[in-house]
Amino acid sequence: MHHPSHIAPVLRAIPHTAVTIADRFWTPRLENNRRRSLFQQYHYLNETGVLANFRNVHQPWDGIYHGLFFSDSDAYKWLEAAGYSLATHPDPRLRRLTDELIRLIAAAQMADGYLNTYFQLVEPEKRFTNFGVCHELYTAGHLIEAGVVHFQATGRPDLLNVARRLADLLTRTFGPGKLEAVDGHAGVELALIRLHRLTGAAAYLDLAAFFINARGRSDSRLRLELAQLERIAGRPGKPGQNNRKHFGSYEAYDGRYAQDHLPVREQSEAVGHAVRATYLYCAMADLAQETGDSALLEALRRIWRHVTARRLYVSGGIGPSRANEGFTRDYDLPNDTACAESCAAVGMVFWNHRMLQLTGEGRFADLMERVLYNAFLAGVSLDGGKYFYNNPLQSQGDCHRREWDECACCPPNIARLLASLGGYIYSLSPGGLAVHLYIQSSVTARLAGGAEFTLRQTGDYPWEGRISLALELAEPADFELRLRLPGWCRSHQLRINGIPADPPLAEGYLVIARRWSPGDSLLLELAMPAERVQAHPRVWQNAQKVALQRGPLLYCLEAADHAVPVEQILLPENAPLTGSFYPDLCGGVVALEGEALAPSLENWADRLYRFAEPAVALRPVRLRAVPYYCWDNREPGAMTVWIPRLNP
Amino acid sequence: MHHPSHIAPVLRAIPHTAVTIADRFWTPRLENNRRRSLFQQYHYLNETGVLANFRNVHQPWDGIYHGLFFSDSDAYKWLEAAGYSLATHPDPRLRRLTDELIRLIAAAQMADGYLNTYFQLVEPEKRFTNFGVCHELYTAGHLIEAGVVHFQATGRPDLLNVARRLADLLTRTFGPGKLEAVDGHAGVELALIRLHRLTGAAAYLDLAAFFINARGRSDSRLRLELAQLERIAGRPGKPGQNNRKHFGSYEAYDGRYAQDHLPVREQSEAVGHAVRATYLYCAMADLAQETGDSALLEALRRIWRHVTARRLYVSGGIGPSRANEGFTRDYDLPNDTACAESCAAVGMVFWNHRMLQLTGEGRFADLMERVLYNAFLAGVSLDGGKYFYNNPLQSQGDCHRREWDECACCPPNIARLLASLGGYIYSLSPGGLAVHLYIQSSVTARLAGGAEFTLRQTGDYPWEGRISLALELAEPADFELRLRLPGWCRSHQLRINGIPADPPLAEGYLVIARRWSPGDSLLLELAMPAERVQAHPRVWQNAQKVALQRGPLLYCLEAADHAVPVEQILLPENAPLTGSFYPDLCGGVVALEGEALAPSLENWADRLYRFAEPAVALRPVRLRAVPYYCWDNREPGAMTVWIPRLNP
Repeated sequence: MHHPSHIAPVLRAIPHTAVTIADRFWTPRLENNRRRSLFQQYHYLNETGVLANFRNVHQPWDGIYHGLFFSDSDAYKWLEAAGYSLATHPDPRLRRLTDELIRLIAAAQMADGYLNTYFQLVEPEKRFTNFGVCHELYTAGHLIEAGVVHFQATGRPDLLNVARRLADLLTRTFGPGKLEAVDGHAGVELALIRLHRLTGAAAYLDLAAFFINARGRSDSRLRLELAQLERIAGRPGKPGQNNRKHFGSYEAYDGRYAQDHLPVREQSEAVGHAVRATYLYCAMADLAQETGDSALLEALRRIWRHVTARRLYVSGGIGPSRANEGFTRDYDLPNDTACAESCAAVGMVFWNHRMLQLTGEGRFADLMERVLYNAFLAGVSLDGGKYFYNNPLQSQGDCHRREWDECACCPPNIARLLASLGGYIYSLSPGGLAVHLYIQSSVTARLAGGAEFTLRQTGDYPWEGRISLALELAEPADFELRLRLPGWCRSHQLRINGIPADPPLAEGYLVIARRWSPGDSLLLELAMPAERVQAHPRVWQNAQKVALQRGPLLYCLEAADHAVPVEQILLPENAPLTGSFYPDLCGGVVALEGEALAPSLENWADRLYRFAEPAVALRPVRLRAVPYYCWDNREPGAMTVWIPRLNP
Repeated sequence: MHHPSHIAPVLRAIPHTAVTIADRFWTPRLENNRRRSLFQQYHYLNETGVLANFRNVHQPWDGIYHGLFFSDSDAYKWLEAAGYSLATHPDPRLRRLTDELIRLIAAAQMADGYLNTYFQLVEPEKRFTNFGVCHELYTAGHLIEAGVVHFQATGRPDLLNVARRLADLLTRTFGPGKLEAVDGHAGVELALIRLHRLTGAAAYLDLAAFFINARGRSDSRLRLELAQLERIAGRPGKPGQNNRKHFGSYEAYDGRYAQDHLPVREQSEAVGHAVRATYLYCAMADLAQETGDSALLEALRRIWRHVTARRLYVSGGIGPSRANEGFTRDYDLPNDTACAESCAAVGMVFWNHRMLQLTGEGRFADLMERVLYNAFLAGVSLDGGKYFYNNPLQSQGDCHRREWDECACCPPNIARLLASLGGYIYSLSPGGLAVHLYIQSSVTARLAGGAEFTLRQTGDYPWEGRISLALELAEPADFELRLRLPGWCRSHQLRINGIPADPPLAEGYLVIARRWSPGDSLLLELAMPAERVQAHPRVWQNAQKVALQRGPLLYCLEAADHAVPVEQILLPENAPLTGSFYPDLCGGVVALEGEALAPSLENWADRLYRFAEPAVALRPVRLRAVPYYCWDNREPGAMTVWIPRLNP
């Protein structure tokens, strides 16, 4: 028996539907997402046969299943993104596409609620046999999320009904004394909790809790499958081959890939596939929020401390290895071969947003912001048309975004986060409102006491640290405003109605509790100089190097800006760096510029190695660093985040 | 028509059977090879079913083919190694094993001469259909080499006869107007030239020339195969899958993997799979030697300049990428993920040895020595029992030699080079004798003029640079001695019979032409300080780093010698390094020692990143570098060759 001590969430996120974004930085990206990305992604879903799979379930079929096992999930994620978008920006053309797709999906559902076109078309007798690699529950989770979001967005229950029929099949099929499985790819757990929150049905929460608590059992189903490879589902000609690849053998089972190595409350380290990890951590946070189970939150805190102290790229990316798309060893953070999958960045935003609501602690908002502006945003091109799967921090010029991949998980994942970005900016706190992100926007909040007010942010973040906040309220009211003081900021000033103020700092937030009057305003100035950042000496890839940051943005050097190969640039410790805004550079960015040095290439002739000279001959070079998120948007070339530092 | 201008080889290598090695450094390795490695390798060939494949051709078969397509070649390479060993060190036990294996092989040969157990057992109807990936001719080449060597070693023609029957099948099958193919993996070409040299039969040389000249044809057979994937041989269940992986598609054929991108005389860059490349270059050198074709030598010189200026590890290893086990881009030399396959090091020794005989130029001997003492020698453990496939120049402690791999090409390749090492030390020059390697040994040479003499080297190379050479001859004779002055050596002294001498330097050799008398002696002293080496600034992985060298040996830092993680060690430019011999360290080595620095780990707490301090707090650490070849022979741990340099 488990007797949790009780915790209560500190904050309640304000949904994106209550927030209006009008931001110089983000609005163009959100419009690209709405006007281009969603339609281009639909085009590819159609063209690559993902939609045909649904059609083929109830039509004569040519025998060709399109895409990977879990390609259905890409369609569902797209629907979720479209749903968020429709909720704030109704678009008849998008609405038509979603309605059509929902009809296609609904028609493919079996009488008992089952829906997974791979199993329906290719291996109907093998459903619910290979949880290790077939993503059957993960895919169901994405349908459930899409159903919830579409209902919330449009009020129409059609997709939600499909999702519930499938969820009901899951509650009938899985659980104690029934089929006791977990999915190799987490995702269904957090989806079931979303469905529970919408419907109030306890069965969904119970099943989510079952899935979460079943992870790490000694009689793991994922382990059992390794002894049954011939009897479980798998790709034609390769039955169960990937189970061994990811989980070892029955005798030497290694569940880390799916975070199935320990019961979740005993986990302390981030291991395995990075996306799976973040989705599981989200579900744990959701379950903690629903049940008040402090042991879950403590485990999440341990894992979070471990990730942030040992396994996090400076971009906020996670999962260094492409072999397992996930974690390896402490301090192993290769720059050039980094996986740092875009979906893992999305997962990090989801997870940190949940940790933030549970705890109210700014460290989670700091990391959420770091990921959003760097690891996440680098995943999509400036025009919204191309995507990175891997996000290296160094490239020799051969790594480029693509419009689509066979494994197309990232594009719709990026789209669903962008389409719901407004939901990450504000939360209701017990005493008022917390501002997590400095995105020009307005939010209308109704406090517990009944007072309603509108807060309007203006400024030019992330290019400038001057943020104006204006309050609109009908009559004076007592409440607190919590303004996040970012972890990257070393100096700030606050004025309230023009008068310098020095409110207390709590958990990374300036807490201003007072009686607010109509027309009150705040001016927060965050100093935003160019900063050099160093990595812990145990990260050998970054020894004697610095990365450049300004505000929330990580910077990089690109070949397009340099006369010498970027990997040759050395940054003297005392070289000043100046930030200037260039409206025509990468859609308008602050670039950091200064004088650096590069080795002289004289006297090398055709040699590759030579005796080291005591003093390396150096020549001055002009350095220009651009934000990391916008790399690979100009002519292809090398890129590096970490720059060798040179003693003066 | 091709009209080559004529070239003639400058040197003629003295075979290992005419050389007796008695060397403090090499003799223990050669004894390990003879007494342990050969028997252990035989054990694994037997245990993994490589030998059973031959038996199964003429016995009832259980249907299980053992190993990769080309596992026969491992048995042949082992036989070649055993042959070299039997030629200098007759060993009844080894002789019994080889005789038994030769009987097994002979019994497996088909009436028409065909012999390849994969095709005989698994896909008999598919022989000679998939040259791109099945290694059928490559495997034949190793049989031919083994046959030649066994005949030379023992005078017994049994294996040679098997090899000739197969070679005769090849001459009947392949060539102009017959089957016009090349093998995806070069190897048969140099083998056929060896067979030609032994037998004098022109057909073998002609076929070798055909295979060499057919590479890079626009109607490449390897390209054609991409349009016939269903009709050609391949692994069960994956017909031809790897053809696409390595060569693209029929429409977009990329022959680089097999050096099939250009006719050989038009090639200028080292591309593709590194082992294949070196074997092809060996064959080109052999053909140039046989035909005097200067265009072949010019191509080889271009390729060699390209490799050495752009694509060579400081260890002498080649082929940075594990994806293609080969070349990538200029200056792309990652340390941690390096492939630098041991077999490619063997191939580099073969190729440079051939270039040396063709040209007499010391640069080829320099590289041969660099590879031998570093990239090659690192491939085998000190006790001769374990092997590296990949040879990274940096490890986080998770890279270890193994006794055997599924792809077991490296162990017998290393064994055949060690067993014939004596053949790389000396050559006859037109006027006398050239000494390429300073290995304690004696050689008896008969000059063109008829004079015979014995040269005896003594010294303690590579630990000390003092080399004594004593001449034994019956009566005074005029001839030249060429003593290689290594490229790594910046200062030397020579004494002849105790008297300082300053002979001319030609092509990297001190040329001493005089009348020699019985009892004459030479003393060559090569200064051997610890040296810092830097890489060309375009090698980004080594920016602001140095490697340590002493004499021919590259050094590295291993965790076993250091209190701090080796990746944190910084080497001040002015820190002196002292070499001292430690008899109990790694079998006895000169270690380089000095005071280095490492970042202080104070004030990091649990942070992974922090604002860079203008002056990094450093603490002194004792540095000890050991020769690279002996890394991973003590407790497992991190290793690095390249050390960040610190301005004083």
